[in-house]
Amino acid sequence: MYLARIYVTLKTAVNDPQGHTVLGGLKNLGYSQVTGVRVGKYLEVRVDAPAKATAEALVKEMCQKLFANPVIEEFRFQVEELAASPRN
Amino acid sequence: MYLARIYVTLKTAVNDPQGHTVLGGLKNLGYSQVTGVRVGKYLEVRVDAPAKATAEALVKEMCQKLFANPVIEEFRFQVEELAASPRN
Repeated sequence: MYLARIYVTLKTAVNDPQGHTVLGGLKNLGYSQVTGVRVGKYLEVRVDAPAKATAEALVKEMCQKLFANPVIEEFRFQVEELAASPRN
Repeated sequence: MYLARIYVTLKTAVNDPQGHTVLGGLKNLGYSQVTGVRVGKYLEVRVDAPAKATAEALVKEMCQKLFANPVIEEFRFQVEELAASPRN
């Protein structure tokens, strides 16, 4: 059993209105030290695969097909092996 | 200038309907190897602080006040120093 931690972020050139809103909220709370905010997605996916390389290939395919929009987003992930008795 | 990478996730005991929906989507796409999905938030925050410890304290406070709902969510973050000429 493997756990993949997946990070999906907007490409640098893409405008991030959600990040701008969060930045505004922080400024209103008095955090004038904050100069920029980008908001992304984080997913934890448990995969039943015979080897780490298989799990990584599967996760990459899932990211390309379902998690990230390749036109405006990019993704990265880490896969780690889990000990027995998985949660969830 | 420091960059904080913040991960906000639902606590393990909290039900994650969004994760269940993603799991259903993956199953429909044929990914029967996937056994669980949890969805969280990922934020990148740029902070102008004199020292790393100051930046870390600020980010922790922001997480507690704005980014995470302590009743159902938990957060973790990493702070790294950025070289000159920050983007965004």
